[in-house]
Amino acid sequence: MMLSWLYPLEKVLHSLGMEVTNKFIVIKTQIDGKPQESDFEFKTEPFSLTVKPGSNDIIIKNLYMSIDPYQINRMKTMSSSQKASEFAVGISPGKVIDAYGVGKVIASGNPKFEKDDYVVGLISWGEYSISQGFILNKLDPMGFPLTYHVGLLGLSGLTAYSGFFEICKPKKGEKVFVSAASGSVGNLVGQYAKHFGCYVVGCAGSPNKVKLLKEKLGFDEVFNYKEETDLNSTLQRYFPNGIDIYFDNVGGEMLEAAISNMNMNGRVALCGIIAEYTNAGKRAAPDLLNVIYKRITIQGFLSGDYMSLFPEFLTTTIDHLRTGKIHVLEDVSVGLEGVPSAFVGLFRGDNVGKRIVQVSLD
Amino acid sequence: MMLSWLYPLEKVLHSLGMEVTNKFIVIKTQIDGKPQESDFEFKTEPFSLTVKPGSNDIIIKNLYMSIDPYQINRMKTMSSSQKASEFAVGISPGKVIDAYGVGKVIASGNPKFEKDDYVVGLISWGEYSISQGFILNKLDPMGFPLTYHVGLLGLSGLTAYSGFFEICKPKKGEKVFVSAASGSVGNLVGQYAKHFGCYVVGCAGSPNKVKLLKEKLGFDEVFNYKEETDLNSTLQRYFPNGIDIYFDNVGGEMLEAAISNMNMNGRVALCGIIAEYTNAGKRAAPDLLNVIYKRITIQGFLSGDYMSLFPEFLTTTIDHLRTGKIHVLEDVSVGLEGVPSAFVGLFRGDNVGKRIVQVSLD
Ligand SMILES: NC(=O)c1ccc[n+]([C@@H]2O[C@H](COP(=O)([O-])OP(=O)(O)OC[C@H]3O[C@@H](n4cnc5c(N)ncnc54)[C@H](OP(=O)(O)O)[C@@H]3O)[C@@H](O)[C@H]2O)c1
Ligand SMILES: NC(=O)c1ccc[n+]([C@@H]2O[C@H](COP(=O)([O-])OP(=O)(O)OC[C@H]3O[C@@H](n4cnc5c(N)ncnc54)[C@H](OP(=O)(O)O)[C@@H]3O)[C@@H](O)[C@H]2O)c1
Repeated sequence: MMLSWLYPLEKVLHSLGMEVTNKFIVIKTQIDGKPQESDFEFKTEPFSLTVKPGSNDIIIKNLYMSIDPYQINRMKTMSSSQKASEFAVGISPGKVIDAYGVGKVIASGNPKFEKDDYVVGLISWGEYSISQGFILNKLDPMGFPLTYHVGLLGLSGLTAYSGFFEICKPKKGEKVFVSAASGSVGNLVGQYAKHFGCYVVGCAGSPNKVKLLKEKLGFDEVFNYKEETDLNSTLQRYFPNGIDIYFDNVGGEMLEAAISNMNMNGRVALCGIIAEYTNAGKRAAPDLLNVIYKRITIQGFLSGDYMSLFPEFLTTTIDHLRTGKIHVLEDVSVGLEGVPSAFVGLFRGDNVGKRIVQVSLD
Repeated sequence: MMLSWLYPLEKVLHSLGMEVTNKFIVIKTQIDGKPQESDFEFKTEPFSLTVKPGSNDIIIKNLYMSIDPYQINRMKTMSSSQKASEFAVGISPGKVIDAYGVGKVIASGNPKFEKDDYVVGLISWGEYSISQGFILNKLDPMGFPLTYHVGLLGLSGLTAYSGFFEICKPKKGEKVFVSAASGSVGNLVGQYAKHFGCYVVGCAGSPNKVKLLKEKLGFDEVFNYKEETDLNSTLQRYFPNGIDIYFDNVGGEMLEAAISNMNMNGRVALCGIIAEYTNAGKRAAPDLLNVIYKRITIQGFLSGDYMSLFPEFLTTTIDHLRTGKIHVLEDVSVGLEGVPSAFVGLFRGDNVGKRIVQVSLD
């Protein structure tokens, strides 16, 4: 509702080269445990919709925001390891939070972008973003909803695709286990793996998610890990002949149990460890004798390293989409105000599929 | 002393097709903590030095026994993971213990072996072995001492060579860390890495070992880990620009510290985890966020998978030997009676280099 009047107003202001008020979200202090809505606050700032003469800036109206678990690691008191990665630059209290999403260019001093271009990449948790073009690309929606470009056809998709095909190096018929299987990355890993010809078991945190993955997404088996008391024997039950590939989104105890159930030459793609993000005491301590005897490879990866795979990933995925072979699992809410709650909900498993917040109408 | 009279006696007995008494070592019960000499006992059995007509057996006089840490894992109450590997078949109390070593054929019903052949492979912790030819090869000493074929030119060498070159995939100039660096595998990893053109830091458990590795073996730096209180900052000190390759022989805290100090695209070759063999509570729980952000690969391996590399390994190593580029670090004691003490000493760091027991004179 609120959004609809913004658009014409902004248009007027823009045509006048005027300033608007940009509402954006900040953390109040560093967050070291589970995040709560009260850890966030809204700020406003005067925001110019025109580009300063000679500047390279791109002024963007934010449309769809990707809500990603890894951001919590940037909100923590920083450790040296986090500082080491360009993907984990710390978020400071009171400061704008950059995030992946889709927007529309309002004005550009950068020759690569022009007014009314759709863009995908690093924007920010606010109504407007100002970008220097760093991790930002022009977006051709190709007839798909913009939300697809936030998840399925964006980084979540590339993460699932590159992680599964490049890191897991699957062979047809292999047995694949994926955790956080109803999540944005997880559901796609499962679908890619099924179409590739693997046997796929997932785990998720509610009966509804289990039902959805089995009945709609074609997983061979799914279990609700919250109902299990001994993950080791759970996995033994679902993989009587062992796991060949574990696509890990959660870390912690699930990783330990998976490693205990892996086959010779098993591969673990370490994509994320959400169970450890908000609980530093919960570090996985897998049985490394297993890793040696079974010649297991555990490999961490970031999808950002696989941008060269993007065209192949896009072709395959769009092909699957057009032939109805991929179900799109999205969880879209409306309004910037909902970002903190959408974010903290990730750590309670509130989302089903890709969590997105629509910030503005197109 | 005792050994010298055995030889002629055995010769006589053999020529008469008679039996001897074979002394061998067994465990009294399964060993789940640190092994002690009192966990072992000696048994004797009548042992025929002739091959039964029609049998495929090879009768071997054991000469040199390889003393290997992994045997402790076979002496434990078995877990499913250990059962899963052909390299970790359980050792039962009271039963003959098979082990790697060099021997000489006394009699053979197997057409691939004949009397007086040297053999290398699976023999047993006793004076004599009987083999069906499983993991046993004819050995051409090539003018080198037989002990070399137990360590340097045997499985320790192949482990160091295949682990370093195949698993670590080194590039010249990369920074390599190796633990248990004065041990049989570790000292060779360090030497291969130096000759390949890497910067090499090792750790070992005594001032003498540190001195030896630096002064004789050409390690760039070595530290005594027992004198360090915070391994993380120790490694930061020795690797101000990070570790590219960690060749892990010990697991536990050292692995955690190494992972915290690794560079982008770092590789960990998981060769052994001796710190965890006798202390199940000491499992490494490395920071997996580091593994993801730094795209680290942790890979378990067994040298037995790299037999196809044996000729290349042998050529390179013999070449290094002949040009004086490799120092041979051996720790040889005499007499079967010393096997239990040689073995338990591995877990106290008593050995410097390849631990071998000479069981008989040639
Ligand atoms: N390496 C990369 O390049 C890369 C890129 C994107 C994402 N990631 C990582 O991949 C993982 C999935 O990301 P995503 O964007 O697809 O998020 P997501 O899976 O859509 O959302 C997170 C899900 O994780 C599950 N979860 C939350 N807390 C958990 C816990 N303590 N134990 C087990 N499961 C828990 C919840 O589902 P349940 O109902 O099943 O509990 C929740 O829905 C994350 O770890 C993320 O950091 C990595
Ligand atoms: N994957 C394979 O194919 C393969 C093949 C052979 C061996 N291995 C493994 O490689 C490793 C080395 O084997 P090796 O035959 O060369 O033995 P080794 O290193 O010659 O002997 C063991 C050494 O480990 C060190 N050590 C003992 N307890 C320790 C602890 N709690 N923490 C740290 N260091 C400790 C001691 O030296 P310090 O004085 O430094 O403490 C000791 O000398 C072992 O883990 C073994 O199981 C693997």
